[in-house]
Amino acid sequence: MKPIERLRALDAEAKLVEHIGAMLGWDQETYMPSAAIDERSDQLALMESLTHDMATSPEIGSILAELGSNAEAPGGPESLPTIDRAYLRVMRRKFDQATKLPSELVSEMAKATSLSQAAWVQARKDDDYRAFAPHLSKMLEFNKTVAACLDPGKRPYDVLLDQFEEGAIEAQVASVFSALRDDLVSLLDRILGGPQVDDSFLRRNCPAAAQAKASAYFMKALAFDATRGRLDTTAHPFTTTLGGSDVRITTRYVEEYFPSSVFSTIHETGHALYELGLDPSPDYRRTSLAEASSMAIHESQSRLWENTVGRSLGFWLHHLPALRQMLSPVLDGVGLEDFYRAINKVEPSLIRTEADEVTYSLHVILRFELEGALVSGDLSVDDLPGAWNDGMKRLLGVVPTDDAHGCLQDIHWSMGSFGYFPSYALGNLYGAQWWDAMKAQGLDPKSAVEQGNLGSILSWLRTNIHKPGAIYKPGELVEHVTGNALDPSHFVRYLNDKYAGVYGF
Amino acid sequence: MKPIERLRALDAEAKLVEHIGAMLGWDQETYMPSAAIDERSDQLALMESLTHDMATSPEIGSILAELGSNAEAPGGPESLPTIDRAYLRVMRRKFDQATKLPSELVSEMAKATSLSQAAWVQARKDDDYRAFAPHLSKMLEFNKTVAACLDPGKRPYDVLLDQFEEGAIEAQVASVFSALRDDLVSLLDRILGGPQVDDSFLRRNCPAAAQAKASAYFMKALAFDATRGRLDTTAHPFTTTLGGSDVRITTRYVEEYFPSSVFSTIHETGHALYELGLDPSPDYRRTSLAEASSMAIHESQSRLWENTVGRSLGFWLHHLPALRQMLSPVLDGVGLEDFYRAINKVEPSLIRTEADEVTYSLHVILRFELEGALVSGDLSVDDLPGAWNDGMKRLLGVVPTDDAHGCLQDIHWSMGSFGYFPSYALGNLYGAQWWDAMKAQGLDPKSAVEQGNLGSILSWLRTNIHKPGAIYKPGELVEHVTGNALDPSHFVRYLNDKYAGVYGF
Repeated sequence: MKPIERLRALDAEAKLVEHIGAMLGWDQETYMPSAAIDERSDQLALMESLTHDMATSPEIGSILAELGSNAEAPGGPESLPTIDRAYLRVMRRKFDQATKLPSELVSEMAKATSLSQAAWVQARKDDDYRAFAPHLSKMLEFNKTVAACLDPGKRPYDVLLDQFEEGAIEAQVASVFSALRDDLVSLLDRILGGPQVDDSFLRRNCPAAAQAKASAYFMKALAFDATRGRLDTTAHPFTTTLGGSDVRITTRYVEEYFPSSVFSTIHETGHALYELGLDPSPDYRRTSLAEASSMAIHESQSRLWENTVGRSLGFWLHHLPALRQMLSPVLDGVGLEDFYRAINKVEPSLIRTEADEVTYSLHVILRFELEGALVSGDLSVDDLPGAWNDGMKRLLGVVPTDDAHGCLQDIHWSMGSFGYFPSYALGNLYGAQWWDAMKAQGLDPKSAVEQGNLGSILSWLRTNIHKPGAIYKPGELVEHVTGNALDPSHFVRYLNDKYAGVYGF
Repeated sequence: MKPIERLRALDAEAKLVEHIGAMLGWDQETYMPSAAIDERSDQLALMESLTHDMATSPEIGSILAELGSNAEAPGGPESLPTIDRAYLRVMRRKFDQATKLPSELVSEMAKATSLSQAAWVQARKDDDYRAFAPHLSKMLEFNKTVAACLDPGKRPYDVLLDQFEEGAIEAQVASVFSALRDDLVSLLDRILGGPQVDDSFLRRNCPAAAQAKASAYFMKALAFDATRGRLDTTAHPFTTTLGGSDVRITTRYVEEYFPSSVFSTIHETGHALYELGLDPSPDYRRTSLAEASSMAIHESQSRLWENTVGRSLGFWLHHLPALRQMLSPVLDGVGLEDFYRAINKVEPSLIRTEADEVTYSLHVILRFELEGALVSGDLSVDDLPGAWNDGMKRLLGVVPTDDAHGCLQDIHWSMGSFGYFPSYALGNLYGAQWWDAMKAQGLDPKSAVEQGNLGSILSWLRTNIHKPGAIYKPGELVEHVTGNALDPSHFVRYLNDKYAGVYGF
């Protein structure tokens, strides 16, 4: 066995264990009886420690050292095919991330994170930011330490950002977001200056069983392969990968707001299609190269299907009759245009996860600005609520009356995730850029959607985005596929065109 | 940490892994998408190999050697409390079983078993015993080799039997079964000599949803704790343990025969209650002492609930009104007596799993006689079909017209399980003996059932059967609980009394 083959075999075994952990986690959220939680936590911890042992095995270290230090020799990276070199990049990165943190730090962090999350749950319930603040400070300190361990030569936030968006740096994201922010704020102003949309019929009571039928219908419409995954229900929708041909998604059925399940199912199906399409080459199945390029690229898939496709007029031209029938009589008397406007209603609100396409990225940009300032020390933990409220006023024109609906709303910081938020908005930008690339490459995605021919869109995404997996860093992928760097103008143009139609200006 | 504490910790970790394997297996049967099977098999194999590594760890070996060879010293087994000594017995047995087989033998057997099972499925489909016979021969040879490895000084079938029913020997089981057989055959003669029962209304179409409601109702009636397990649907009902507080059962809904789900749910709930009640002491939670005493004791629980309780007149006196309502209109116009007689109809048939209480044990006794003869060499593999058909004629008065409904019907031998079958009939015997012990100890289980007070029965079983777990070998348990050795007369008396009522003689 060549060293790189042995590396793939070790990697594939670690991935098996990781998928077993995902199975345990999936069951915990879907079907596990409540009293099983104690032993389940121990089962998960055991699988995590096994994954960690496998990811940090000295044998992986020596294969990487051998291939890395021997660049000119036969078998060294320079003589390897591109795909093998990409794989070595991915494995070095993983190995570094797993080995550079002292194990005491990892275990201290795990304990502190668990306390922090519990404190966050309580603080949000009590609307008591002060009770959570010490935990947030600790999470910040841990993150700075992690950044220093991983790469002491780089700015801490850049190191954290890189964990989710390989190769990204704060200054560059800030410049992209700054242009985007101004364009979004001005679009929002125009929208709010005119007559508003009536979406009251979306709140008609709609039984879960009818919504479940619709969810199954839309998964099929998106060509989701039912032999390679399934849909279940949970309190918070998610996608999880239990195997190369086993991706599970979940949704929830809110009887007073059926669009919640329709669009969350389409969103999660978008994530699942990406996971199921990762296939850089037969040799690399079940390896870390058959993984997403980044969280933002993942989000570009879910949001492209949910919004660009799923909230388009053409999509409902094709699918509204079926939805009307499945949800009958909920949509009786609701025409296509009214339905389209209602599901695209723009309204500044306090909660990110409920935001429309225009305001969503503004929520994300606020979080990016604040977490960058927290990590750099420009913003103190004590001053976060004030800064949050100021930012909401500035970007969205609304101010939360309490921190529970303000800076305590998201789980991310409580679990020590700094640098993750930008992915959500970057996903929108990548998605719009893919859409324009399809057009530039001769596909007519708009007509395809109108004709219910989503297969042609999926096929383009499969070839260009899904298949390469982690061969390209996200910045390389966008260059490779579109010939250009990430460019927010695609998204801004898309929104301006769309909302000019929705709001008639 | 004392050696025995360390032993418990090692054991508990192995058990975690075993439960994770059970989780993977459960999901495979219930929700797993079909294309996931390849990777799932690898995940299961990995967990099995990990379980094996843990069970055979040299550290366990040296702790057992230390405690075992040091009987007189402080900390040696003689100075240990009874429960610790029982634990050492269980762990030695497990360690021996895991270490005495050469690993090449184990892996050869795994391969051969997989081929044998596939050949069996095909042979049963084609009704082609000759195609399966070479595999059966191989499975027999492997089993003799296993027996020789485990205990060369004992008769091979005794060694195999002991794997499922610790301490049992063929001669003793044969003597118990021989008395039982004659009594059952003569009871069957009496039953068949009189007028037969009409159970045609049990075949009225009954939707799965109504049956699901009934299953949930009966689990609740048996005081199954819904926070510690759940019910799902599979092609073949089973019970599996995913954690000390996580036992999953399954059933299937046959729309043309609702009693199938009602009684399989009660049966599996009986297994689950046993698993959830295993609790020899707080120190021994999650260890191999918190396991069933034997397969037959397990079966004594499922069959006691299914038959002694679930097919009794008193049970339906209490629950028929609720069932009638849940299944409405299926049982409209069916009275209690007619229902009771129908669910207890006796009819010699070809298939063990569909047999009634009287004929069931006869099916099992036939298999016991035949597998004993196969292992000893008194019966050749080629002569099995003939011997099967002769036995069916002799015991049940019916003869299969093909081997698919004859000696090819059960999966057990194809997977190399010899010595397992007796458990099914022994379970009936133990169950009847527990029932009489309850009465002897002042409980009135019959009245309790009539009053819907199943908690008092469960409570007796918890204390006497469930809680001790594997502290007692099955033969010791029956002595401990009833003051007597296993005695088939309890079961025979129970059946004679019951069927005199059902058939009016």
